[in-house]
Amino acid sequence: MGSIFFAHSGGVTTTINATLSGIIDGYHKHQSSFSNLLVGENGIIGAIKESLIDIKQYTPEELQSIYSQPGAAFGSCRFKLKDPNTQSAQFERILDVFKAHNIKYFIYNGGNDSQDTTLKLSTYFKKNHLDIHCMGIPKTIDNDLYGTDNCPGFGSAAKYLITSIMEAGVDLRSMSNSSTKVFILETMGRHTGWLAASTGLAKAPFGPHVILMPERKFNRSAFLKKVDQSVHRNGYCIISVAEGVKLHEDQLHSNRGVDAFGHQQLGGIAPHIASLIKDELDHKTHYAVADYLQRSARHLASGTDLEQAKALGKFAIESCLKKSFNEKMLAIKRVSDNPYQWDITSTPLSTVANEEKVIPDEFISECGMHITDACRQYLKPLIQGEQWLDYSDGCPNYSALEKKFVEEKCAPYVY
Amino acid sequence: MGSIFFAHSGGVTTTINATLSGIIDGYHKHQSSFSNLLVGENGIIGAIKESLIDIKQYTPEELQSIYSQPGAAFGSCRFKLKDPNTQSAQFERILDVFKAHNIKYFIYNGGNDSQDTTLKLSTYFKKNHLDIHCMGIPKTIDNDLYGTDNCPGFGSAAKYLITSIMEAGVDLRSMSNSSTKVFILETMGRHTGWLAASTGLAKAPFGPHVILMPERKFNRSAFLKKVDQSVHRNGYCIISVAEGVKLHEDQLHSNRGVDAFGHQQLGGIAPHIASLIKDELDHKTHYAVADYLQRSARHLASGTDLEQAKALGKFAIESCLKKSFNEKMLAIKRVSDNPYQWDITSTPLSTVANEEKVIPDEFISECGMHITDACRQYLKPLIQGEQWLDYSDGCPNYSALEKKFVEEKCAPYVY
Repeated sequence: MGSIFFAHSGGVTTTINATLSGIIDGYHKHQSSFSNLLVGENGIIGAIKESLIDIKQYTPEELQSIYSQPGAAFGSCRFKLKDPNTQSAQFERILDVFKAHNIKYFIYNGGNDSQDTTLKLSTYFKKNHLDIHCMGIPKTIDNDLYGTDNCPGFGSAAKYLITSIMEAGVDLRSMSNSSTKVFILETMGRHTGWLAASTGLAKAPFGPHVILMPERKFNRSAFLKKVDQSVHRNGYCIISVAEGVKLHEDQLHSNRGVDAFGHQQLGGIAPHIASLIKDELDHKTHYAVADYLQRSARHLASGTDLEQAKALGKFAIESCLKKSFNEKMLAIKRVSDNPYQWDITSTPLSTVANEEKVIPDEFISECGMHITDACRQYLKPLIQGEQWLDYSDGCPNYSALEKKFVEEKCAPYVY
Repeated sequence: MGSIFFAHSGGVTTTINATLSGIIDGYHKHQSSFSNLLVGENGIIGAIKESLIDIKQYTPEELQSIYSQPGAAFGSCRFKLKDPNTQSAQFERILDVFKAHNIKYFIYNGGNDSQDTTLKLSTYFKKNHLDIHCMGIPKTIDNDLYGTDNCPGFGSAAKYLITSIMEAGVDLRSMSNSSTKVFILETMGRHTGWLAASTGLAKAPFGPHVILMPERKFNRSAFLKKVDQSVHRNGYCIISVAEGVKLHEDQLHSNRGVDAFGHQQLGGIAPHIASLIKDELDHKTHYAVADYLQRSARHLASGTDLEQAKALGKFAIESCLKKSFNEKMLAIKRVSDNPYQWDITSTPLSTVANEEKVIPDEFISECGMHITDACRQYLKPLIQGEQWLDYSDGCPNYSALEKKFVEEKCAPYVY
């Protein structure tokens, strides 16, 4: 018997705690087959620092509360492991910690960078003759992972953005006769437009007239024409724009630095679009930047998303039991659209790591500024279902779980 | 018997439709005492254009749906009537329209500018020997009206902001070990800090460590010190900032023009604060600009707010019946804090028009960057209660009511 190491990695989502919840349920169901379930504090950093959360120390009520909280209950990270061939200290350390705690299963829940981490670790473990079963579970609001029909976290972020743009749309429509004519909602999504595209599901007349996605080069004159037409035809224009859109080549919207993986911090396109419209068309504009709100709005999580995120966690434990899906990332497979049916499958980590899946051409309308019916059909099942949260004293019942660690067995590590 | 004219005016809120819903309920209860209930399309503009919505033409289901929609079902406006002493054409026109439709009651639902409109009209009607009962109903997310304990619309916007900052706070806390250290939420509120202050109700450890309100002059060094201390003590820092805060004297955050009342369009302080923190402290920052989302998030409306907004509408109709509260704005009076009890009272329009009520000194903590317990006690009842919305197909059930007008009786007016 061996122990399981699980951790969250990369930007959090509304439903990654649902995956942890599924991991815990799966572990409890098959507890006799594993020594322990240890959760890394702050992702892989927890493995390096030997900060391992001991799930056995929590009450059932505490563990149950995890499911209804946004964020990562025990932390996540943006942390790139050094090259094992030239600077192997971190890998050696993880190996020591895993040996000391008899860890035989490594499950990492993250996006493309995180799947790369899993792959590197797996390769290193094999090279050092350590039999550790390594698996990835997908997670990203960006929906940009290869090998899976959709990514847990995306549906909930989409549902939040759709509700938000509809509400702002109702507002705009009420006022446009004598006030603001154009509203812009900036979404996340890095270099893909999935989140901006999802707002196309918002119901008319409160949905976007224009959707700007990085998959299409920004066409300034066509854009301004479309906005002006909408204002003259409808009295107002609703726009959603992905943070990754560039108004011109080599543009940086902000000088906000790079993360551990060297990715430029995006965000801040909405004010530029607002200025462009004000300057060129002289329409009064307003903009919102949803930022972290879209990836943490647990109060609006999608039922489908919660179900899939949790199921993947449970499935991962069962896969450990069967020693199946080694060096694989679990994935969602769409079985049918209507009724929506899905299953769990897998894809090699190597096909996922560091790649970005962009919106396919057939999902983007001819003008390049909206989505097609095929895209709507794809997106629709992902935002279905509501699970209202408990509130107390007017606030959501979020609370921070105390971190209860397993006893350290290795010497302290300074990294 | 005479008819009632009702209209929404100024920036919409999550709950102004609840006030219209109360107006409709009150009218139906006392229908035999009034000729008709006419709602101005787009506020007072509807009176000038003789675009008068005829409530009698709607089914009970249609009228019921109004309560659960954000925005103004029949439109609102930012529209300043011209000076009746020098350019009286608009006033003469309104007088003609009101005479033609036998309107004897004027109820205007808005903020400080709107109460000024009501006062001007009342003065004009009196001067022209027309007996029209003129009343105001308060409404503004800014909570800055004199003569009322709180303003309908504020509690719901506050509830939205509190939920949002808590969710972003959970997110930040999950990631701060290796990623973003500071999160900034920009709120509306014009020249007052009520909305930013309300986020002080968010539960620790997910609430703001710093609240910037325009009631206090921005102290750059004290601010940076507080942010840095929070990052070192807690690992992260959550900030809420009111759009009206100025980083230095005479600052304009945006060059976005002025509205019909000559008010500078605010918004856009968050990126400046983010840059300041990045430049001076080198902490990774993220910011969200909630903008219209905070004043239209019907899916998170406060139960107290909905109840008060609706009650004011009903009460206004009863006041028309009794011919009481002429030239008054109805107001909320707090009877007790615990249990929270309130009543409806009134205040002369002249004390409300064009004034802004700022946060009192005893509500702001000594450092000037947080709220006191007295402020918490004041705010707490206003965000209580949840009423979850119906969703269908993954989206909120918002729909646009067709506008059904009463037959025109006057000659067309070109304004």
